[in-house]
Amino acid sequence: MSLSSLSALRTEIFHYIDAHQSDFIENLKEWVAVESDSVQPDLRKEVIRMMSLAAARLAALGATVNSLLNGQHLPLPPVILGELGKDPQNLTICFYGHVDVQPAKKEDGWKTDPFTLTEINGNLYGRGATDNKGPVLAWINAVGTFRALKRAMPVNFKFVIEGMEEAGSLGLEKLLEEEKQGFFSDVDYIVISDNLWLSKKKPALIYGTRGNACFCVEVEGGDKDLHSGTFGGIIHEPLTDLIALLDSLVDPTGHIQIPGIYDAVAVLTDEEKKLYESIEYDIEEHKNNSGVKKLLYSTKEEILLHLWRYPSLSIHGIEGAFHEPGIKTVIPAKVIGKFSIRQVPNMDLSDVHQRVVDHLENVFAKRNSPNKLKVSMPLGAQPWVADVNDPLYKAAKRAIKTVFGEDPDFIRDGSTIPIARIFQTITQKRVIMFPIGAADDGEHSQNEKISRFNYIEGTKVFAAFFLEIAKLRGQSHETSNPGTNN
Amino acid sequence: MSLSSLSALRTEIFHYIDAHQSDFIENLKEWVAVESDSVQPDLRKEVIRMMSLAAARLAALGATVNSLLNGQHLPLPPVILGELGKDPQNLTICFYGHVDVQPAKKEDGWKTDPFTLTEINGNLYGRGATDNKGPVLAWINAVGTFRALKRAMPVNFKFVIEGMEEAGSLGLEKLLEEEKQGFFSDVDYIVISDNLWLSKKKPALIYGTRGNACFCVEVEGGDKDLHSGTFGGIIHEPLTDLIALLDSLVDPTGHIQIPGIYDAVAVLTDEEKKLYESIEYDIEEHKNNSGVKKLLYSTKEEILLHLWRYPSLSIHGIEGAFHEPGIKTVIPAKVIGKFSIRQVPNMDLSDVHQRVVDHLENVFAKRNSPNKLKVSMPLGAQPWVADVNDPLYKAAKRAIKTVFGEDPDFIRDGSTIPIARIFQTITQKRVIMFPIGAADDGEHSQNEKISRFNYIEGTKVFAAFFLEIAKLRGQSHETSNPGTNN
Repeated sequence: MSLSSLSALRTEIFHYIDAHQSDFIENLKEWVAVESDSVQPDLRKEVIRMMSLAAARLAALGATVNSLLNGQHLPLPPVILGELGKDPQNLTICFYGHVDVQPAKKEDGWKTDPFTLTEINGNLYGRGATDNKGPVLAWINAVGTFRALKRAMPVNFKFVIEGMEEAGSLGLEKLLEEEKQGFFSDVDYIVISDNLWLSKKKPALIYGTRGNACFCVEVEGGDKDLHSGTFGGIIHEPLTDLIALLDSLVDPTGHIQIPGIYDAVAVLTDEEKKLYESIEYDIEEHKNNSGVKKLLYSTKEEILLHLWRYPSLSIHGIEGAFHEPGIKTVIPAKVIGKFSIRQVPNMDLSDVHQRVVDHLENVFAKRNSPNKLKVSMPLGAQPWVADVNDPLYKAAKRAIKTVFGEDPDFIRDGSTIPIARIFQTITQKRVIMFPIGAADDGEHSQNEKISRFNYIEGTKVFAAFFLEIAKLRGQSHETSNPGTNN
Repeated sequence: MSLSSLSALRTEIFHYIDAHQSDFIENLKEWVAVESDSVQPDLRKEVIRMMSLAAARLAALGATVNSLLNGQHLPLPPVILGELGKDPQNLTICFYGHVDVQPAKKEDGWKTDPFTLTEINGNLYGRGATDNKGPVLAWINAVGTFRALKRAMPVNFKFVIEGMEEAGSLGLEKLLEEEKQGFFSDVDYIVISDNLWLSKKKPALIYGTRGNACFCVEVEGGDKDLHSGTFGGIIHEPLTDLIALLDSLVDPTGHIQIPGIYDAVAVLTDEEKKLYESIEYDIEEHKNNSGVKKLLYSTKEEILLHLWRYPSLSIHGIEGAFHEPGIKTVIPAKVIGKFSIRQVPNMDLSDVHQRVVDHLENVFAKRNSPNKLKVSMPLGAQPWVADVNDPLYKAAKRAIKTVFGEDPDFIRDGSTIPIARIFQTITQKRVIMFPIGAADDGEHSQNEKISRFNYIEGTKVFAAFFLEIAKLRGQSHETSNPGTNN
């Protein structure tokens, strides 16, 4: 396709999308009306109903839809695998999204009924509006626009739509494993649109998330809790040991004290450093959102670097000790400290685990305590990082420039979103996180919304992205392995 | 009374007590049958019924009985003030005891019904058998024996019997204040028999208890809990601050790290040290009871000194942090550490309070944290110590030698029993803790018991004690102020 005809097609598509805003919002209204809360078991049937609606909508696009059942006791909703187009000349993009939502109740502080999509001042309020029903529909509507205009599909589409994301994506990883030689074998790129921009106004692409290594450190004394009057002063109290162990982990500036823990952290390159300069980020607003009075750092770059690409350690609490209001003069027999490390490339999970164990055992040994120490890592999610120079990212960047008139921020997420890492690790495909929601959308909060602007322009940016991907035909496999750069 | 006639009287009394064992046990059986559990509000009526039984029994002795009502919402049982004898030639002993009990249910692991006194192998099992119905009845029966034998009362008696001890002696302190110029004005000595010997076999007198200064140390960051992915690494986490504060309190050997905290601890005298040598105390058994593998000290003297007459600091837990099983990657916004110091003579409560505040503020200041620190002492009970050379103690010692054939151990209690201190402080009378139960009686536990031997010999020892007190006429006010020696 020539440049001018491409441009004409794009214009036609954008016009169509603008003209059908009301239809697209009607679609979202229909979806938001389903209380597909996957967290509360008694609403599981609504999630299952939601999956049928999503499958029907894909089928209406002309996609082949396969709903895979999972789950034993309480029925799990199916995972939808859809596909549309099998042109061997085209690249294949697999879109991942979810149509289940977080719990919501009007009385939690919603200004409007959470399951009735309501537009106020250009914002579409409703549970799932931005997380993740809106983006899923934006993608579907972008695909639908090509069909409505009877235009050839510029790429082949695949869809993975699940209904258990808010409950930990139960069963999804297993399904990916099973399908990696089948459904995923001819996929070129995977797109996830389940995040937000860092700014209220400026688009962003996400190329990394931190990992999460969760630790339990258990100190056990005798077999029962004791009274501090009867035993205080003559025994090694397990909680005193535990407090000392926890106190050895991190200093007042947030620096982790575990020897060698920073050794594997990827060196910050000049190119990477540059990415941080242009990022639109309101420190004051982030601080105000946190409710804290003062952050550990004062510049945008320092804050974002410590949030995204340096590890952090947080202590969450203690199990087994007295935790209620008031006073109980107990010497707890067995206490379990909980902390986690948000690790970053290229920290290896098993290396982190070993260093934590060695450090805690070393600190404990110096105490000469007869109590028993047990350190475990019940949960370990790896960090994820993609190469922003991959054609996939460049295509998304161009689509954004076309629709929004500016380059996106390349950002990371300090949280752990295992889905990107899991898709990348299992399928060995390139993954992009391509959000269309704004920083203030309030996913998981009361009054969740997506703006009409973001929803409609998001639809356009996905359509423009398809056209950009189409341009990559024949050059998509030139780059290095996914996710090894940082 | 001549020595020989005294001895004859004593013999007569002891014979009477031996001959009426079954009656005395019947009395105890009747009392144990009342589920006078003051902890559970729906059993309050049983506590009130128990108070009537106790009042009736005192009235049967010939005592004047006054049942003082207290309480507003849920009716509190009355406190019984009884008196028997007003001979100005006699000294007046006030006996304190309680007839309410801890909760008990057969299914908690009792071998017998907890409210049916049951004798097995010389032990009388039942809730309240040793705590405190048995000792109260032993005292009443000892008094009753003089009446039954138509003997002149060797002393005047007063009784304070309450029914809310297990629920914190609600209202008692206020009543003592109100009655200090009235009921208590002509009292010479106060006897409390609400403890146990340190040994299973060897009698003991208790002359001290540790105090308890309970602290809350609160660290507050922002106004809401945060997610460790979104804020980990860029904020001063309140729990990290709190862990450091708690870790600054006590070293691995149990030594308190608060500057100057030991300054006021009374110096151990040679005389006092000697008291520890003869004490019968089974380290192995105490260790086994605790369930711990190793104590901080290995000799009897070191253990008892650190339990009774040196302060200890125990950390109890943290409110506001994650305390459940599993992992929650939360950064808690406000956390409150709970710890307490068992303080000893002559540590002053307000001095302890000030030192704790100063120390924690000092440690906190060095962290440069923007979080808010708040230290409070919601509860402070003072230690209590009596002079073992007081004639009161010598009289009890002689009574014990007469009945049990050996001198008692002079012991303390590492726990805080505010009652002794409160009686002493408010009434300014000399107080003795005069237990008749053995170390293995299991107060508050399943299968609580008092042995027939302890119950009957305890009755005798109280009777013998009355005779010993009678000997003190004219010399009771010679010693120094109560409780200032250590």
